[in-house]
Amino acid sequence: MTTAEGTIQLAHGGGGRLSQQLIQELLLPAFGPADGVLHDAAVFASPGQQLAFTTDSYVVRPLFFPGGDIGRLAVIGSVNDLAMAGAQAIAMSLALIVEEGLPLTTLQRVVSSIRAAADQCGVKVITGDTKVVERGKGDGLFINTSAIGVVEHGQMIHPPSVHPGDVVLVSGDLGRHGVAILMAREELGFRCSLESDLAPLHSTVQELLGEGIALHCLRDLTRGGLASAIDEIARGARCAMELEETAIPLSEPVRSACDLLGLDPLAMANEGRMLVICPQADADRALAVLQRQHRDACRIGSVQAALAEASELDQRHPVSIRSSLGVLRPLDLQRGEQLPRIC
Amino acid sequence: MTTAEGTIQLAHGGGGRLSQQLIQELLLPAFGPADGVLHDAAVFASPGQQLAFTTDSYVVRPLFFPGGDIGRLAVIGSVNDLAMAGAQAIAMSLALIVEEGLPLTTLQRVVSSIRAAADQCGVKVITGDTKVVERGKGDGLFINTSAIGVVEHGQMIHPPSVHPGDVVLVSGDLGRHGVAILMAREELGFRCSLESDLAPLHSTVQELLGEGIALHCLRDLTRGGLASAIDEIARGARCAMELEETAIPLSEPVRSACDLLGLDPLAMANEGRMLVICPQADADRALAVLQRQHRDACRIGSVQAALAEASELDQRHPVSIRSSLGVLRPLDLQRGEQLPRIC
Repeated sequence: MTTAEGTIQLAHGGGGRLSQQLIQELLLPAFGPADGVLHDAAVFASPGQQLAFTTDSYVVRPLFFPGGDIGRLAVIGSVNDLAMAGAQAIAMSLALIVEEGLPLTTLQRVVSSIRAAADQCGVKVITGDTKVVERGKGDGLFINTSAIGVVEHGQMIHPPSVHPGDVVLVSGDLGRHGVAILMAREELGFRCSLESDLAPLHSTVQELLGEGIALHCLRDLTRGGLASAIDEIARGARCAMELEETAIPLSEPVRSACDLLGLDPLAMANEGRMLVICPQADADRALAVLQRQHRDACRIGSVQAALAEASELDQRHPVSIRSSLGVLRPLDLQRGEQLPRIC
Repeated sequence: MTTAEGTIQLAHGGGGRLSQQLIQELLLPAFGPADGVLHDAAVFASPGQQLAFTTDSYVVRPLFFPGGDIGRLAVIGSVNDLAMAGAQAIAMSLALIVEEGLPLTTLQRVVSSIRAAADQCGVKVITGDTKVVERGKGDGLFINTSAIGVVEHGQMIHPPSVHPGDVVLVSGDLGRHGVAILMAREELGFRCSLESDLAPLHSTVQELLGEGIALHCLRDLTRGGLASAIDEIARGARCAMELEETAIPLSEPVRSACDLLGLDPLAMANEGRMLVICPQADADRALAVLQRQHRDACRIGSVQAALAEASELDQRHPVSIRSSLGVLRPLDLQRGEQLPRIC
């Protein structure tokens, strides 16, 4: 690893460049799939069916925030990861790492919230684990959820299916989750009525599949936001991509908060928004489905030519963004998430 | 919950009475199976096959100990949980919660160890997640592994299958893992050559199945040790059980360490030992399989009459243990694990 200090830094968990580096240099060499394709959930054949499998730990701070809490986030996050492979969750695991001294009432609130979210998503928590660590060796509560899904469609929904000419759609306005968490952190001392966009995406994906839309790639925009997701997809697809900055939907509170604090809204986390990449021919029908869920869903870009092996600039910056003045500039991936522990 | 302080205590994670209480009073009401049967892995039907699913977080301290490390423990722990349902692991997830400042070389050692253990157990890590928390908000490294297994036998291997007249076998000597961890904690300042018993159990289980043995229940003896496991099985089976204290295999170093420190070897953690409960008629063949793996495998007890609904003593203490002097006393379940963060 090339980090100067030789130690783990917060940015290694932020979904940006250092996260990619950790995965590429340490984890993939040990566990990486032969085809090198990374996605939110792993799909594998088991006798009689295709299954999808995903895992995520949640270390969000604070535990409760406008629009959700760590429990609801843990359930919906894993349901959404499966949905990004077009899979329906059939079973979920729940593992708690609790810091000594956490009030039982807090744990009870989180458990109720997990149950409500699981019911909403139609998934059952069927196995679990609880560990307790000494005071000062944790931070209240960390949660891991892993989930198994069934894949009932015949599509290959992942970056290598993305082709030049495809369009890039987004399912709603961006950055609400990141800004809501930021606001909820007391030390910042300002208030705002904005809520996280935290919401399950599986029904929308099932509707897209039901409409017969060719889903080349789906990606929920969590840590690292749109910028990190589109960069990863472009690399996986080996295609250049172009975004229209003016098309990207941002609510006024998100825009103001980002302006005020000097944050990039395209790198802000979301927990209920996804990219849909499909052929131009299916774009209008896909948009109609997305807009039934959220009126801000829109087209924000397109897939350009395959990346030339030779061009170093393309390799470093496969995604470009066209500004309101028409200037095309490379989309820069942040070194890490702007905010640690967003999920 | 009935804990005086209304907060989570270390013992809630120890596998003893407080752990049972947390599960019974908080988690089961939210997620519990309709039949109330708890086991190491959940088995469920999916189209075309029976699957098993398990999750565990690992917070063991220190990260490296004689006979293993947190990575090897995380892989083998989940493989063993599946094996306890007679399932073969087909896919594993790996989620890391890393504390800022952990040396990258430490993470690399753990990742290599995970890979080696996964290869040994014939399971592939197919999905993962990494989160980083600020210095002082974690403790080096916590790992969650979840695993999916396929169940290819037709047996119901779980506590309700246990019947009066069954015999209780153990697959080797007890307490090595707990004592090895204890020794590895520097603050204790004494040395010993004892290694953890950490080892995969799936091949032995497959051999037992291959021999056609009726496996009424299997249970690996982790947190809380033999005492906690047998108490849980007896409650699940609604049967009284009787153990022979003199039959329980203990190595000399474990016996001395427990004597010296006033610890109960029956409550010490193991990571490579299991109980096998089967009909008397199959006991000799089962023992022959177990003894091929470990010469100390032996019969340690038997299943007595079904618990009388009326007897309060039976309900409180379903397991009795006969001492070397022939005295039968109730087996007392510890309030919590004697040592926190053993796994």
